Amino acid sequence: MYGRFTELNMIEIERKFLVTSQAFKTQATSQKRIVQGFLNTNPDRTVRVRIKGNQGFLTVKGTSSESGTSRFEWETEITITEAEALLKLCEKRVIDKIRYEIPFKNHIFEVDEFFGANEGLIIAEVELNSEDEHFEKPDWLGEEVTGDIKYYNSQLSKHPYNTWK
Amino acid sequence: MYGRFTELNMIEIERKFLVTSQAFKTQATSQKRIVQGFLNTNPDRTVRVRIKGNQGFLTVKGTSSESGTSRFEWETEITITEAEALLKLCEKRVIDKIRYEIPFKNHIFEVDEFFGANEGLIIAEVELNSEDEHFEKPDWLGEEVTGDIKYYNSQLSKHPYNTWK
Repeated sequence: MYGRFTELNMIEIERKFLVTSQAFKTQATSQKRIVQGFLNTNPDRTVRVRIKGNQGFLTVKGTSSESGTSRFEWETEITITEAEALLKLCEKRVIDKIRYEIPFKNHIFEVDEFFGANEGLIIAEVELNSEDEHFEKPDWLGEEVTGDIKYYNSQLSKHPYNTWK
Repeated sequence: MYGRFTELNMIEIERKFLVTSQAFKTQATSQKRIVQGFLNTNPDRTVRVRIKGNQGFLTVKGTSSESGTSRFEWETEITITEAEALLKLCEKRVIDKIRYEIPFKNHIFEVDEFFGANEGLIIAEVELNSEDEHFEKPDWLGEEVTGDIKYYNSQLSKHPYNTWK
Protein backbone atom coordinates (compact mmCIF):
# COMPACT_ATOMS: atom_id res chain seq x y z
CA MET A 1 0.00 0.00 0.00
CA TYR A 2 1.33 3.42 -0.91
CA GLY A 3 -0.10 6.78 -1.78
CA ARG A 4 -0.43 7.65 -5.43
CA PHE A 5 -1.77 10.35 -7.59
CA THR A 6 -4.76 9.49 -9.72
CA GLU A 7 -6.63 11.82 -11.97
CA LEU A 8 -9.95 11.33 -13.67
CA ASN A 9 -10.44 14.20 -16.10
CA MET A 10 -13.71 13.51 -17.78
CA ILE A 11 -12.47 15.88 -20.45
CA GLU A 12 -8.99 16.98 -21.40
CA ILE A 13 -9.07 20.00 -23.72
CA GLU A 14 -5.96 20.72 -25.74
CA ARG A 15 -4.80 21.99 -29.12
CA LYS A 16 -1.83 20.65 -30.98
CA PHE A 17 0.57 22.33 -33.42
CA LEU A 18 3.66 21.55 -35.42
CA VAL A 19 6.78 23.45 -34.36
CA THR A 20 8.74 25.32 -37.04
CA SER A 21 12.08 26.01 -35.36
CA GLN A 22 14.31 25.07 -32.46
CA ALA A 23 13.87 28.54 -30.90
CA PHE A 24 11.48 27.15 -28.27
CA LYS A 25 14.41 25.46 -26.51
CA THR A 26 15.78 28.77 -25.25
CA GLN A 27 12.44 29.50 -23.55
CA ALA A 28 12.04 26.10 -21.87
CA THR A 29 11.87 26.02 -18.07
CA SER A 30 12.16 22.24 -17.85
CA GLN A 31 12.90 19.22 -19.98
CA LYS A 32 12.31 15.56 -19.28
CA ARG A 33 12.87 12.39 -21.25
CA ILE A 34 9.70 10.40 -21.90
CA VAL A 35 9.66 6.75 -22.98
CA GLN A 36 6.24 5.31 -23.64
CA GLY A 37 4.49 2.36 -25.16
CA PHE A 38 0.89 1.33 -25.75
CA LEU A 39 -1.17 -1.58 -24.47
CA ASN A 40 -3.80 -0.45 -26.94
CA THR A 41 -3.35 2.00 -29.80
CA ASN A 42 -7.06 2.14 -30.69
CA PRO A 43 -8.00 5.87 -30.44
CA ASP A 44 -11.33 4.85 -28.82
CA ARG A 45 -9.52 3.34 -25.82
CA THR A 46 -5.82 4.10 -25.87
CA VAL A 47 -3.88 2.57 -22.98
CA ARG A 48 -0.44 4.16 -22.47
CA VAL A 49 2.49 3.15 -20.26
CA ARG A 50 4.89 6.05 -19.68
CA ILE A 51 8.18 6.64 -17.92
CA LYS A 52 8.72 10.39 -17.50
CA GLY A 53 11.94 11.28 -15.73
CA ASN A 54 11.83 9.11 -12.61
CA GLN A 55 8.05 8.59 -12.55
CA GLY A 56 5.80 5.95 -14.11
CA PHE A 57 2.24 6.46 -15.34
CA LEU A 58 -0.60 4.41 -16.78
CA THR A 59 -3.04 6.47 -18.83
CA VAL A 60 -6.32 5.63 -20.55
CA LYS A 61 -7.73 7.97 -23.20
CA GLY A 62 -11.09 7.76 -24.94
CA THR A 63 -12.50 8.97 -28.22
CA SER A 64 -12.01 12.65 -28.95
CA SER A 65 -14.79 15.15 -29.64
CA GLU A 66 -15.66 15.98 -33.23
CA SER A 67 -13.30 18.98 -33.22
CA GLY A 68 -10.56 16.76 -31.81
CA THR A 69 -9.98 19.26 -28.99
CA SER A 70 -11.53 17.33 -26.05
CA ARG A 71 -10.76 13.81 -24.95
CA PHE A 72 -11.53 11.64 -21.92
CA GLU A 73 -8.38 10.96 -19.92
CA TRP A 74 -7.67 8.92 -16.79
CA GLU A 75 -4.19 8.64 -15.36
CA THR A 76 -2.59 6.90 -12.40
CA GLU A 77 0.99 6.99 -11.20
CA ILE A 78 2.75 3.63 -11.08
CA THR A 79 6.24 2.66 -9.96
CA ILE A 80 9.16 2.55 -12.40
CA THR A 81 9.35 -1.22 -11.82
CA GLU A 82 5.69 -1.60 -12.79
CA ALA A 83 6.14 0.69 -15.80
CA GLU A 84 9.15 -1.27 -17.03
CA ALA A 85 7.31 -4.59 -16.68
CA LEU A 86 4.25 -3.21 -18.50
CA LEU A 87 6.38 -1.63 -21.28
CA LYS A 88 7.55 -5.15 -22.13
CA LEU A 89 3.94 -6.13 -22.94
CA CYS A 90 3.34 -3.10 -25.15
CA GLU A 91 2.86 -3.12 -28.90
CA LYS A 92 6.02 -3.10 -30.95
CA ARG A 93 7.47 0.36 -31.14
CA VAL A 94 8.20 2.48 -28.08
CA ILE A 95 8.06 6.28 -28.37
CA ASP A 96 11.16 8.14 -27.20
CA LYS A 97 11.03 11.93 -26.83
CA ILE A 98 12.08 14.90 -24.77
CA ARG A 99 9.32 17.10 -23.41
CA TYR A 100 10.04 20.79 -22.89
CA GLU A 101 7.77 23.01 -20.82
CA ILE A 102 7.51 26.56 -22.09
CA PRO A 103 5.48 29.22 -20.30
CA PHE A 104 4.24 31.79 -22.82
CA LYS A 105 1.93 34.64 -21.78
CA ASN A 106 -0.83 32.99 -19.75
CA HIS A 107 -0.36 29.42 -20.93
CA ILE A 108 2.15 26.61 -20.74
CA PHE A 109 3.15 24.92 -23.98
CA GLU A 110 4.42 21.36 -23.85
CA VAL A 111 6.76 20.69 -26.75
CA ASP A 112 7.76 17.12 -27.67
CA GLU A 113 10.93 16.54 -29.68
CA PHE A 114 10.83 12.98 -31.00
CA PHE A 115 13.72 10.58 -31.51
CA GLY A 116 14.14 7.18 -33.13
CA ALA A 117 11.71 6.45 -35.94
CA ASN A 118 9.93 9.77 -35.29
CA GLU A 119 13.04 11.96 -35.39
CA GLY A 120 12.40 15.26 -37.16
CA LEU A 121 8.95 15.63 -35.66
CA ILE A 122 8.37 18.36 -33.05
CA ILE A 123 4.85 18.88 -31.68
CA ALA A 124 3.52 21.53 -29.29
CA GLU A 125 0.41 21.17 -27.14
CA VAL A 126 -1.42 23.75 -25.09
CA GLU A 127 -4.01 22.74 -22.50
CA LEU A 128 -7.11 24.91 -22.32
CA ASN A 129 -10.04 25.35 -19.94
CA SER A 130 -12.59 25.52 -22.75
CA GLU A 131 -12.63 24.69 -26.45
CA ASP A 132 -12.75 28.37 -27.45
CA GLU A 133 -10.28 29.76 -24.90
CA HIS A 134 -7.99 32.38 -26.43
CA PHE A 135 -4.21 32.00 -26.18
CA GLU A 136 -1.19 33.86 -27.56
CA LYS A 137 0.93 32.01 -30.12
CA PRO A 138 4.72 32.01 -29.90
CA ASP A 139 6.71 32.60 -33.13
CA TRP A 140 7.79 29.00 -33.46
CA LEU A 141 4.20 27.66 -33.52
CA GLY A 142 3.29 26.31 -36.96
CA GLU A 143 0.36 24.51 -38.55
CA GLU A 144 -2.43 23.31 -36.24
CA VAL A 145 -2.86 19.51 -36.23
CA THR A 146 -5.46 19.19 -33.45
CA GLY A 147 -7.57 16.06 -33.94
CA ASP A 148 -5.38 14.68 -36.73
CA ILE A 149 -5.08 11.09 -35.62
CA LYS A 150 -1.76 10.48 -37.38
CA TYR A 151 -0.09 12.81 -34.85
CA TYR A 152 -1.43 10.84 -31.87
CA ASN A 153 1.50 9.20 -30.11
CA SER A 154 -0.37 5.89 -30.31
CA GLN A 155 -0.36 6.18 -34.10
CA LEU A 156 3.24 7.43 -34.22
CA SER A 157 4.23 4.20 -32.48
CA LYS A 158 2.66 2.14 -35.30
CA HIS A 159 3.22 4.48 -38.25
CA PRO A 160 6.24 6.58 -37.34
CA TYR A 161 7.19 9.86 -39.00
CA ASN A 162 10.10 8.35 -40.99
CA THR A 163 7.63 6.13 -42.90
CA TRP A 164 5.40 9.02 -44.01
CA LYS A 165 7.47 10.26 -46.95
CA MET B 1 -3.66 10.95 -2.89
CA TYR B 2 -4.85 7.76 -1.26
CA GLY B 3 -3.44 4.38 -0.43
CA ARG B 4 -4.10 1.54 -2.81
CA PHE B 5 -3.22 -2.03 -3.31
CA THR B 6 -1.08 -2.83 -6.30
CA GLU B 7 0.28 -6.19 -7.21
CA LEU B 8 2.89 -7.09 -9.77
CA ASN B 9 2.94 -10.85 -10.11
CA MET B 10 5.48 -11.58 -12.75
CA ILE B 11 3.74 -14.93 -13.03
CA GLU B 12 0.24 -16.02 -12.12
CA ILE B 13 -0.07 -19.82 -12.15
CA GLU B 14 -3.54 -21.28 -12.38
CA ARG B 15 -5.50 -24.15 -13.87
CA LYS B 16 -9.01 -23.85 -15.22
CA PHE B 17 -11.85 -26.41 -15.40
CA LEU B 18 -15.45 -26.62 -16.49
CA VAL B 19 -17.93 -27.25 -13.67
CA THR B 20 -20.39 -30.11 -14.07
CA SER B 21 -23.03 -29.39 -11.41
CA GLN B 22 -24.40 -26.74 -9.10
CA ALA B 23 -23.18 -28.68 -6.04
CA PHE B 24 -20.27 -26.26 -5.53
CA LYS B 25 -22.70 -23.61 -4.30
CA THR B 26 -23.35 -25.44 -1.03
CA GLN B 27 -19.59 -25.37 -0.29
CA ALA B 28 -19.05 -21.68 -1.09
CA THR B 29 -17.79 -19.45 1.71
CA SER B 30 -18.36 -16.22 -0.21
CA GLN B 31 -19.97 -14.92 -3.36
CA LYS B 32 -19.55 -11.61 -5.12
CA ARG B 33 -20.94 -10.12 -8.28
CA ILE B 34 -18.32 -9.18 -10.86
CA VAL B 35 -18.93 -6.85 -13.80
CA GLN B 36 -15.99 -6.39 -16.12
CA GLY B 37 -15.05 -5.05 -19.50
CA PHE B 38 -11.90 -4.90 -21.59
CA LEU B 39 -9.85 -1.99 -22.90
CA ASN B 40 -7.96 -4.59 -24.89
CA THR B 41 -8.99 -8.20 -25.52
CA ASN B 42 -5.68 -9.17 -27.19
CA PRO B 43 -4.38 -12.13 -25.12
CA ASP B 44 -0.83 -10.68 -25.45
CA ARG B 45 -1.82 -7.56 -23.51
CA THR B 46 -5.29 -7.86 -22.03
CA VAL B 47 -6.44 -4.75 -20.14
CA ARG B 48 -9.41 -5.43 -17.84
CA VAL B 49 -11.66 -3.05 -15.89
CA ARG B 50 -13.49 -4.83 -13.07
CA ILE B 51 -16.06 -3.98 -10.44
CA LYS B 52 -16.10 -6.73 -7.79
CA GLY B 53 -18.56 -6.12 -4.99
CA ASN B 54 -17.76 -2.55 -3.91
CA GLN B 55 -14.19 -2.47 -5.25
CA GLY B 56 -12.75 -1.45 -8.61
CA PHE B 57 -9.67 -2.92 -10.31
CA LEU B 58 -7.58 -2.35 -13.40
CA THR B 59 -5.65 -5.45 -14.48
CA VAL B 60 -3.13 -6.07 -17.24
CA LYS B 61 -2.34 -9.63 -18.31
CA GLY B 62 0.34 -10.78 -20.74
CA THR B 63 0.85 -13.80 -22.94
CA SER B 64 0.53 -17.15 -21.22
CA SER B 65 3.20 -19.83 -21.11
CA GLU B 66 3.07 -22.67 -23.63
CA SER B 67 1.11 -24.87 -21.21
CA GLY B 68 -1.32 -21.99 -20.60
CA THR B 69 -0.81 -22.33 -16.85
CA SER B 70 1.33 -19.23 -16.17
CA ARG B 71 0.60 -15.68 -17.15
CA PHE B 72 2.01 -12.24 -16.32
CA GLU B 73 -0.48 -10.23 -14.26
CA TRP B 74 -0.42 -6.69 -12.87
CA GLU B 75 -3.35 -5.31 -10.92
CA THR B 76 -4.18 -2.05 -9.19
CA GLU B 77 -7.23 -1.07 -7.19
CA ILE B 78 -9.19 1.90 -8.53
CA THR B 79 -12.29 3.66 -7.23
CA ILE B 80 -15.79 2.62 -8.31
CA THR B 81 -16.16 6.04 -9.99
CA GLU B 82 -13.00 5.43 -12.02
CA ALA B 83 -14.07 1.87 -12.85
CA GLU B 84 -17.49 3.04 -14.05
CA ALA B 85 -15.94 5.75 -16.24
CA LEU B 86 -13.43 3.29 -17.71
CA LEU B 87 -16.11 0.62 -18.30
CA LYS B 88 -17.82 3.09 -20.65
CA LEU B 89 -14.72 3.06 -22.88
CA CYS B 90 -14.50 -0.73 -22.98
CA GLU B 91 -15.14 -2.92 -26.00
CA LYS B 92 -18.74 -3.83 -26.65
CA ARG B 93 -19.83 -6.59 -24.35
CA VAL B 94 -19.43 -6.47 -20.59
CA ILE B 95 -19.02 -9.73 -18.64
CA ASP B 96 -21.46 -10.26 -15.78
CA LYS B 97 -20.87 -13.14 -13.35
CA ILE B 98 -20.99 -14.27 -9.75
CA ARG B 99 -17.75 -15.52 -8.24
CA TYR B 100 -17.94 -18.15 -5.50
CA GLU B 101 -14.98 -18.98 -3.29
CA ILE B 102 -14.76 -22.61 -2.31
CA PRO B 103 -12.04 -23.93 0.00
CA PHE B 104 -11.37 -27.59 -0.79
CA LYS B 105 -8.61 -29.53 0.98
CA ASN B 106 -5.54 -27.29 0.77
CA HIS B 107 -6.67 -25.02 -2.06
CA ILE B 108 -9.26 -22.39 -2.80
CA PHE B 109 -11.31 -22.78 -5.95
CA GLU B 110 -12.83 -19.71 -7.53
CA VAL B 111 -15.96 -20.61 -9.47
CA ASP B 112 -17.52 -18.15 -11.92
CA GLU B 113 -21.17 -18.54 -12.87
CA PHE B 114 -21.80 -16.42 -15.97
CA PHE B 115 -24.93 -14.49 -16.92
CA GLY B 116 -26.12 -12.63 -20.00
CA ALA B 117 -24.68 -13.91 -23.27
CA ASN B 118 -22.49 -16.39 -21.36
CA GLU B 119 -25.28 -17.91 -19.28
CA GLY B 120 -24.88 -21.67 -18.89
CA LEU B 121 -21.10 -21.44 -18.54
CA ILE B 122 -19.55 -22.21 -15.14
CA ILE B 123 -15.76 -22.18 -14.82
CA ALA B 124 -13.54 -23.08 -11.85
CA GLU B 125 -9.97 -21.85 -11.34
CA VAL B 126 -7.40 -22.92 -8.81
CA GLU B 127 -4.28 -20.86 -8.16
CA LEU B 128 -1.06 -22.82 -7.68
CA ASN B 129 2.44 -22.08 -6.44
CA SER B 130 4.07 -24.08 -9.22
CA GLU B 131 2.95 -25.54 -12.55
CA ASP B 132 3.11 -29.12 -11.22
CA GLU B 133 1.65 -28.54 -7.74
CA HIS B 134 -0.74 -31.34 -6.74
CA PHE B 135 -4.29 -30.51 -5.66
CA GLU B 136 -7.38 -32.54 -4.78
CA LYS B 137 -10.32 -32.31 -7.19
CA PRO B 138 -13.86 -31.82 -5.93
CA ASP B 139 -16.65 -33.97 -7.48
CA TRP B 140 -18.11 -31.12 -9.49
CA LEU B 141 -14.84 -30.42 -11.33
CA GLY B 142 -15.10 -31.41 -15.01
CA GLU B 143 -12.92 -31.13 -18.10
CA GLU B 144 -9.72 -29.10 -17.87
CA VAL B 145 -9.66 -26.05 -20.16
CA THR B 146 -6.40 -24.44 -19.00
CA GLY B 147 -4.85 -22.38 -21.78
CA ASP B 148 -7.87 -22.69 -24.07
CA ILE B 149 -8.17 -19.09 -25.21
CA LYS B 150 -11.89 -19.28 -25.94
CA TYR B 151 -12.52 -19.55 -22.18
CA TYR B 152 -10.57 -16.35 -21.44
CA ASN B 153 -13.01 -13.75 -20.19
CA SER B 154 -11.60 -11.34 -22.80
CA GLN B 155 -12.68 -13.78 -25.52
CA LEU B 156 -16.03 -14.52 -23.85
CA SER B 157 -16.78 -10.80 -24.10
CA LYS B 158 -16.30 -10.91 -27.91
CA HIS B 159 -17.46 -14.46 -28.63
CA PRO B 160 -19.88 -15.35 -25.84
CA TYR B 161 -20.95 -18.87 -24.95
CA ASN B 162 -24.43 -18.53 -26.49
CA THR B 163 -22.84 -18.05 -29.96
CA TRP B 164 -20.75 -21.25 -29.77
CA LYS B 165 -23.41 -23.80 -30.74
